[in-house]
Amino acid sequence: MKRIMLTVSYDGTAYCGWQWQPGVPTVESVLNRELSQLLREEIQVKGASRTDSGVHALGNLCVFDTETRIPPGKICFALNQSLPADIVVQDSCEVPLHFHPRKCGSKKTYEYTIWNSRFPNPVNRRYASWIHAPLDEKRMQEAAACLVGEHDFKSFCSPRTEAETTVRRILEISVRREGCLVILRVQGTGFLYNMVRIIAGTLIQVGRGALPPERVAEILAGCDRALAGPTAPPEGLCLREIALDEDPWETLKNKAISGENPA
Amino acid sequence: MKRIMLTVSYDGTAYCGWQWQPGVPTVESVLNRELSQLLREEIQVKGASRTDSGVHALGNLCVFDTETRIPPGKICFALNQSLPADIVVQDSCEVPLHFHPRKCGSKKTYEYTIWNSRFPNPVNRRYASWIHAPLDEKRMQEAAACLVGEHDFKSFCSPRTEAETTVRRILEISVRREGCLVILRVQGTGFLYNMVRIIAGTLIQVGRGALPPERVAEILAGCDRALAGPTAPPEGLCLREIALDEDPWETLKNKAISGENPA
Repeated sequence: MKRIMLTVSYDGTAYCGWQWQPGVPTVESVLNRELSQLLREEIQVKGASRTDSGVHALGNLCVFDTETRIPPGKICFALNQSLPADIVVQDSCEVPLHFHPRKCGSKKTYEYTIWNSRFPNPVNRRYASWIHAPLDEKRMQEAAACLVGEHDFKSFCSPRTEAETTVRRILEISVRREGCLVILRVQGTGFLYNMVRIIAGTLIQVGRGALPPERVAEILAGCDRALAGPTAPPEGLCLREIALDEDPWETLKNKAISGENPA
Repeated sequence: MKRIMLTVSYDGTAYCGWQWQPGVPTVESVLNRELSQLLREEIQVKGASRTDSGVHALGNLCVFDTETRIPPGKICFALNQSLPADIVVQDSCEVPLHFHPRKCGSKKTYEYTIWNSRFPNPVNRRYASWIHAPLDEKRMQEAAACLVGEHDFKSFCSPRTEAETTVRRILEISVRREGCLVILRVQGTGFLYNMVRIIAGTLIQVGRGALPPERVAEILAGCDRALAGPTAPPEGLCLREIALDEDPWETLKNKAISGENPA
């Protein structure tokens, strides 16, 4: 038995998010189906990030266990042969059997892309949200700065969350403009349900002048979802990368040295 | 009677190019159909650039004549209501009746975008060509430099061209890398059939080491399509902008002053 980790990219347009749900297309169900067919075993992947319906990813991670004799690094080549064009596995490698991508330290990077112009752009309409009101990206950046650090992000979390705590740590946040594109980039150790999209929706209100930049710190302190802006639409959001804090094999080695139970 | 100019953006994926052809979807036929319906007249647009099947545009131009009383600047808003999501008119304005976007001086900017990585990227698969062999963008830039200026581009033109001359002027050409993206940007006063895609196909061969950079000058001098590389696929190509050398109303005024016939 081996545990394999996949780096998965997908165009989320056609999917009801990552997570398996009965009767609807999800990224997880496609991976389970195609892996089971390829490896002739019943495969169930465990994902690092359960992205929402319509959200994209360049580097989500997942693991699964298999008895296959296909070399770990070759699984991505074999699997991409049968996956639809909107899901591509970028890498495959073996990880220790105890390793779980949701139970290890990592830095996740999301980008929320806005096409800020009078009319939509047909060439990026699936991968950017269109906001026609002019946005002041410097105001947005100013407003975003207060979110860096460890905070209770209850105001920026869907009330439907099942998380035990709404405290999370944002490591970096930036808003930049490239022509008509305004790009919000957020790095953190973990995110709540809808968190990046609610941050984006709130910063859009700041950018268009509907909220003063200093209001965002008050919204954060208020710990009330009703204070923040709307949840920005999913097509602008992309999970760019999940960088593990430590190589899973190093973690295993260090735990063995310290006598810790790896599981 | 008024002549209206439209700035047209489109995702070319679903279209057999710009130009009207019987029985197949083209950008021109959609515009003719929707404009005729909106303005209740038989409308036939004249385009500046007849982009190929599958090629995209952010700023193609076209003109048409109309008796409508809709203010010229409002036509884009009305038209976008009925256009499909993959065609968006970015601007509409009145131009002099004699003005034709193919018979005036302009600077056209094309970008050819390559996703240069081991596997395709599902999030840009419709708007970038995937090349898995590593590309050296500095070699490509070095090779491209000889194309700047006025030259006979017969080697970089489909033999199916109907152009009277294959001499064209390239004003600027650059190849840059942004992570896994390699972007070829070409500005010129006019382009031959398939010219940017054959330049891209040839520079890709240079970038992957199949041709030495200095070979491109020899290919140019040879004036033979068989010498150049393959025509790169259409999805990577986007007509970014057509900048008119002069405001059409200024041209009219200057011609009136000099006593020239404006037509």
